Amino acid sequence: MDLELNRPSIREIQKALTSRELSTVEILEYYSHRIDQLDPRLNAFITALHPDEKTIDLGKPLTGIPIVLKDLFETKEVATTSGAEFLRNNIPSKDATVVRKLKDAGAIIIGKTNMHEVALGVTNINPHYGTCRNPWGLDHISGGSSGGSAVAVATGMCIAALGTDTGGSIRIPSSLCGTVGLKPTFGRISVHGVIPLSNNLDHVGPIANYVRDAAILLQCIAGNDPLDPYCLDHPVDDYLTHLEGDINDWKIAIAQGDFIERSQPEVISAVLNAQTVFMELGAKLEKVIIPWLPEAARANSIMTQADAATYHQERLSCSPSDFGADVLQRLRIGSTYTSMEYSQARRIQAECKWKFKNLFELYDLLILPTTPCTAPLIEGADALEQARNLTCFTSPFNLAGIPALSLPCGFSHEGLPIGLQFVGPEWQEAKVLQAGRAFERSTQWHEKIPRLNH
Amino acid sequence: MDLELNRPSIREIQKALTSRELSTVEILEYYSHRIDQLDPRLNAFITALHPDEKTIDLGKPLTGIPIVLKDLFETKEVATTSGAEFLRNNIPSKDATVVRKLKDAGAIIIGKTNMHEVALGVTNINPHYGTCRNPWGLDHISGGSSGGSAVAVATGMCIAALGTDTGGSIRIPSSLCGTVGLKPTFGRISVHGVIPLSNNLDHVGPIANYVRDAAILLQCIAGNDPLDPYCLDHPVDDYLTHLEGDINDWKIAIAQGDFIERSQPEVISAVLNAQTVFMELGAKLEKVIIPWLPEAARANSIMTQADAATYHQERLSCSPSDFGADVLQRLRIGSTYTSMEYSQARRIQAECKWKFKNLFELYDLLILPTTPCTAPLIEGADALEQARNLTCFTSPFNLAGIPALSLPCGFSHEGLPIGLQFVGPEWQEAKVLQAGRAFERSTQWHEKIPRLNH
Repeated sequence: MDLELNRPSIREIQKALTSRELSTVEILEYYSHRIDQLDPRLNAFITALHPDEKTIDLGKPLTGIPIVLKDLFETKEVATTSGAEFLRNNIPSKDATVVRKLKDAGAIIIGKTNMHEVALGVTNINPHYGTCRNPWGLDHISGGSSGGSAVAVATGMCIAALGTDTGGSIRIPSSLCGTVGLKPTFGRISVHGVIPLSNNLDHVGPIANYVRDAAILLQCIAGNDPLDPYCLDHPVDDYLTHLEGDINDWKIAIAQGDFIERSQPEVISAVLNAQTVFMELGAKLEKVIIPWLPEAARANSIMTQADAATYHQERLSCSPSDFGADVLQRLRIGSTYTSMEYSQARRIQAECKWKFKNLFELYDLLILPTTPCTAPLIEGADALEQARNLTCFTSPFNLAGIPALSLPCGFSHEGLPIGLQFVGPEWQEAKVLQAGRAFERSTQWHEKIPRLNH
Repeated sequence: MDLELNRPSIREIQKALTSRELSTVEILEYYSHRIDQLDPRLNAFITALHPDEKTIDLGKPLTGIPIVLKDLFETKEVATTSGAEFLRNNIPSKDATVVRKLKDAGAIIIGKTNMHEVALGVTNINPHYGTCRNPWGLDHISGGSSGGSAVAVATGMCIAALGTDTGGSIRIPSSLCGTVGLKPTFGRISVHGVIPLSNNLDHVGPIANYVRDAAILLQCIAGNDPLDPYCLDHPVDDYLTHLEGDINDWKIAIAQGDFIERSQPEVISAVLNAQTVFMELGAKLEKVIIPWLPEAARANSIMTQADAATYHQERLSCSPSDFGADVLQRLRIGSTYTSMEYSQARRIQAECKWKFKNLFELYDLLILPTTPCTAPLIEGADALEQARNLTCFTSPFNLAGIPALSLPCGFSHEGLPIGLQFVGPEWQEAKVLQAGRAFERSTQWHEKIPRLNH
């Protein structure tokens, strides 16, 4: 198997390991080398680990799979910076719950990835650890805050990654870099040992090149955690059983209206093409207008900034210059909101959950673009404007706490990926993944690989 | 049956109706007369309705039962003031969901009861509709904010009542007036058509003279409501099946520590006596210290005041003199909290839920006083100080959203009732009621009736 010619799936790597076509040592050497070779231009990693595991247990779901972690997952004896200068020397003594779960499943952690500072932003232009670049156009942003994770996955510097998503931070870089990114239901995955942005909106989730790989990762990390006040005790589905099932007769709502149609024309046309795919798959499509999206996005922004300002309160007043300019600006905005603005945002949150609950009594799924545009240029990218612009379709589902998946659904004339978002009702990750897999099976977008000259 | 000599239960009234010992007309005339006779001194009612229903369907759980409603439950064509002057002429066009459910169950609504203005306070000294007085000592407060409901129940001006509880507003007047008051799990009962204080902490619940009657009311009004964003779709137990079950071998936690022991000595000694009752019932008692109670009470207060200020925001800035002095003061405090104070309170809420969840993995039930003292004197009762003092043991369970029941467990040397609080895990109202009934069966406190000379 030539690891470089394609981006292997978890299944392919495990087959090669089982048949002894490849050894763990060879796999890890390959990825170590690839990171060394590509990352200087991409800046996807804050810490590359170059592990040298030799003995592995072949019976586990992630045996021998090289995984990377956004650098806010606490890792035992490995620096965990949250993309902040002031945490450069933060060496946790324990693994986050999900890191332990991945290791227990046989995964090999090969690096900690670049991110927007403290996860408060979507450009991933990080003043301390460098700008993470989009592999489809090096002058373009990767998106964030889990940019490094998406770039590492898209460029085959690892097999899969974990990110976090508070307003779109898994799905936005997935959309801009052409990866598969899942933000599950709020409380589905433990955030214990994950440096928070907003405990009320933070979601852990997988980034991968294929829907099946995202489902495999989800299966390994989903479930209650007695150490986490935000984790919920809800039965975990088998995400692989129905993954290849068809979506014939599913009722799919396609989001319409001004708010959506302000998207870049190429994004709109890619979504229109996707509709044809769903119709060919036998789904019943219906256009819906979701008038509460802008209000939900605004409430999510207020809550995120206020919660982040609260978490960083002491540093914000004693040592504000520790933060980069845009993060400092947003934390200060967060700290100046009144309790009434927060309370109002929380009311909108409750109503938003309820409105989506009612919507999903009529539909199996909601489809909309992940982002209104392809990856903006790094030059001139204003962090606040991009935060508003790129999260407008993603953050309402953080506020509502419902599962949302981003998949590639096309490319712009410049060759930049376009993301399609699949949203489902609470706890229905299995359904969202099944629809994503049906779409992936019917399209070739996931086969395109960014070409980096080297 | 002499309605005046005792305070009949729902079952007793229904038996008398079925055997034709009493007619609905006689019952309604009796209660009409009793309200006319007693209420001028008590001020429990804002609106007495004097209905004259004649035809009734005997097959229903509340057939012919005279019920009163705290005056923030919207009632079709009947004024609903929320204890505020500015809502004196507020005539809703529809019943609140729970009012409709009570009527569907056969209940007869005989009045709308006095309350602390907009439910923001616990003295029930209402500048617009008069001070609600404690029937055990007319110079003492009834407690609030559902004071009128508790007084009407305690004095036999009705059979049972609905109240709401955001920081203790059902349990506090129940404690001070010697009634049974239940605040169920957050989301257990619809708040649709209930004028809010804080949507994040408001709970509807029954007030009655007997645990069984509270259970019957709960059974009639519990359950999901598609009209209410805050109501949760969780199976409704049968609250009567196990009501008479014993609590042998139950593990009961008795709250200890400085915070509890600052209570009035007579309250402490009544709780100690209750412990003996539980031991005789075969329960296993264990002393526990719950160090997070003060922090939880403080977070509940911040959130309540900020949410209330948000709800009343427009009036607060345009027409502040519409509010009574103490409510205005508290709304203004609420409006000046920062978003970071609110966010912090919300974090404490999540952690508080989680800590109680962990506690109830070890215990069936938690016991503590409902209030640290018996009813304070009306004269000199400062609304803010009383809010802090009287809610300190009740509001943590609003923040955590877990069920809590108050029952009479003794009387002070002045003859004022003392309340005992039974707290259980999420959704376990049945368990809390079963323990309350076991205690009631073994004690005579519920048989004492306030003597009002007339």
